Amino acid sequence: MAKLYFKYGSMGSSKTAQALITKYNYEENGMHVWLIKPAADERDGAIILRSRVGLEAPAEVVPPHSDIYELYRSREKTDVIIVDECQFLTPAQIDQLRDIVDVENIPVLCFGLRTDFQCKLFDGSRRLFEVADTITEIKAICDCGAKATVNARLDSEGCIVTEGAQLLLGGNDRYLAMCHKCWIRNIREHRKVKNR
Amino acid sequence: MAKLYFKYGSMGSSKTAQALITKYNYEENGMHVWLIKPAADERDGAIILRSRVGLEAPAEVVPPHSDIYELYRSREKTDVIIVDECQFLTPAQIDQLRDIVDVENIPVLCFGLRTDFQCKLFDGSRRLFEVADTITEIKAICDCGAKATVNARLDSEGCIVTEGAQLLLGGNDRYLAMCHKCWIRNIREHRKVKNR
Amino acid sequence: MAKLYFKYGSMGSSKTAQALITKYNYEENGMHVWLIKPAADERDGAIILRSRVGLEAPAEVVPPHSDIYELYRSREKTDVIIVDECQFLTPAQIDQLRDIVDVENIPVLCFGLRTDFQCKLFDGSRRLFEVADTITEIKAICDCGAKATVNARLDSEGCIVTEGAQLLLGGNDRYLAMCHKCWIRNIREHRKVKNR
Amino acid sequence: MAKLYFKYGSMGSSKTAQALITKYNYEENGMHVWLIKPAADERDGAIILRSRVGLEAPAEVVPPHSDIYELYRSREKTDVIIVDECQFLTPAQIDQLRDIVDVENIPVLCFGLRTDFQCKLFDGSRRLFEVADTITEIKAICDCGAKATVNARLDSEGCIVTEGAQLLLGGNDRYLAMCHKCWIRNIREHRKVKNR
Repeated sequence: MAKLYFKYGSMGSSKTAQALITKYNYEENGMHVWLIKPAADERDGAIILRSRVGLEAPAEVVPPHSDIYELYRSREKTDVIIVDECQFLTPAQIDQLRDIVDVENIPVLCFGLRTDFQCKLFDGSRRLFEVADTITEIKAICDCGAKATVNARLDSEGCIVTEGAQLLLGGNDRYLAMCHKCWIRNIREHRKVKNR
Repeated sequence: MAKLYFKYGSMGSSKTAQALITKYNYEENGMHVWLIKPAADERDGAIILRSRVGLEAPAEVVPPHSDIYELYRSREKTDVIIVDECQFLTPAQIDQLRDIVDVENIPVLCFGLRTDFQCKLFDGSRRLFEVADTITEIKAICDCGAKATVNARLDSEGCIVTEGAQLLLGGNDRYLAMCHKCWIRNIREHRKVKNR
Repeated sequence: MAKLYFKYGSMGSSKTAQALITKYNYEENGMHVWLIKPAADERDGAIILRSRVGLEAPAEVVPPHSDIYELYRSREKTDVIIVDECQFLTPAQIDQLRDIVDVENIPVLCFGLRTDFQCKLFDGSRRLFEVADTITEIKAICDCGAKATVNARLDSEGCIVTEGAQLLLGGNDRYLAMCHKCWIRNIREHRKVKNR
Repeated sequence: MAKLYFKYGSMGSSKTAQALITKYNYEENGMHVWLIKPAADERDGAIILRSRVGLEAPAEVVPPHSDIYELYRSREKTDVIIVDECQFLTPAQIDQLRDIVDVENIPVLCFGLRTDFQCKLFDGSRRLFEVADTITEIKAICDCGAKATVNARLDSEGCIVTEGAQLLLGGNDRYLAMCHKCWIRNIREHRKVKNR
């Protein structure tokens, strides 16, 4: 029986690399993988998904108002669906993926963040925590050696920011994953955590 | 380094039994366990926590407006905190537990449901998914053999209900855990899933 | 598809309690559970399996030369098999359980130790590590706070012993679970780890 | 506290890719990774470790009679050790890695197979199952959709072989990972499982 998987991890935990390796493994078994990614805006189309470690593959960009089940139906052959950055899917799109699993018996693997820079769930992550069959963590390491679970946002000085919009355009280098204990301590001590 | 654990499971997955066994194991190691449970109303005090399989232990009931960190400070000795029915804690109380972990280096283990009968997160579960260090599932089985993840609410005829208040007073026998696929199919077919 | 599960843990990790809770959960779903335990000698028959936390249930004792598949065939109805102390099954008996899973599609859950007091696999554990579908750990805690993985054998003074027969008759109080680092350090320092 | 990790998987489960991604993640955190691989023969030296998905990195080859702890001591700086193909380490070398974890507090991550083509543990895998702190599976998929756990060896016709030496020189394309149920059925039916 197919399942809906949520594989969450903090920034820098190699989620995209895991998505691309999973794609490779399914394709080696002769299966057709549909690799998708939510759009930042309403443009759709094809992109190249790139992981920092050096892997890449073509993916389809899915805008927020697309019905993923309809897109699925219009495709010729799909044995498995892999989503990168799944935290940006809408709850309705997660429900469409859930339907594909339940009705079409197609496995769906979603890779993404669990929380934003304020430790709040993204809408897509919240819906996945509600309806995923299997929830697993892709682990990252804090500088202190513990597991990194928080995505700290940094200002231009390298200090942690706790106010602002959920999305920060063009700022992946503005984030640093750390454990909750270090996050709280760094905030309280106004410590510069990264030279920029 | 101490951690905040969220051990979630559907109804009938023996979460309370797991909480009580964990308590027993810590106590066998000579550690002092504080076993707590959110209050259904504003009454506090001591209760006996009972699992269906036959285990029981005294626990302290914590009303929604209590500050758990203050309660912790007023106690003589606590090496570990175990929470049953953690989905009913307020987000503020989860944050107090998070502080106890970060500041006092005391492990906190939270056992509870992830979602209600509509597959929506409880407030306490949402905050735990946001800030827990470790998230693990206590597994239950659907009648079909798959893993049960949904807490279906039943009407007096044994059919699944999808509308109503999040809390149903006095109705633990009104719930049945099942997999998402069976849940959807049972709803669509208006099937009676349990003789009552 | 049914699976062969190996759920291993050190002494005092509540493996028997987990076996009994699992039995309870399956039975609540209306399934027939066959609870078995390897015999210390050639006597078979019924016993009462007891966990330290206070749970108990009748179990069938299986001598080393019994063919478990034949015993299974002679039973009226079995939906799931649960084994306690599975480390003492013979490799041939693990293979019989493996056959039951593959041919009869019956889930088999084996609870037991992974290693003896010298950190060597038991014969049953070795075979399970080879052929189990799913391997999971039942965690216990070392006095230092880390995970306990080693089953240290103690002499009458409470010091760790590293020579002797794999089985010690009547001596469950002669064991203490600890992490590998503490085990090595306690051995090197000839430290008394438990007052007896 | 550092740990000894055993991350096992069947052939084609992308163990090498996982080892290389883990190396990348540690290095991004500014840590010095020592990547090693057991030698097939007594030659040591440097090689390029390559994963099928396209990642690669220089690694040091460790012959069976090398003392890894001594090699570690002779290195300038090592924050973490990653081993690929760890099933081919000798038990003595696993014990040396165990010592490095316990004494030097250096994490050691071992990636490798659990069993050979006859479902027997490799010597290195056996010792890791005995002394690793954390045992996790890197999952692969059988053609039937279940998890692949067995490394089937194929003859030149593509049929499963169950007799022969543990090591087969130059024959990675002679293996196919599958679930135990399919393995047994394919053997019994003398089925050709792969066109060659």
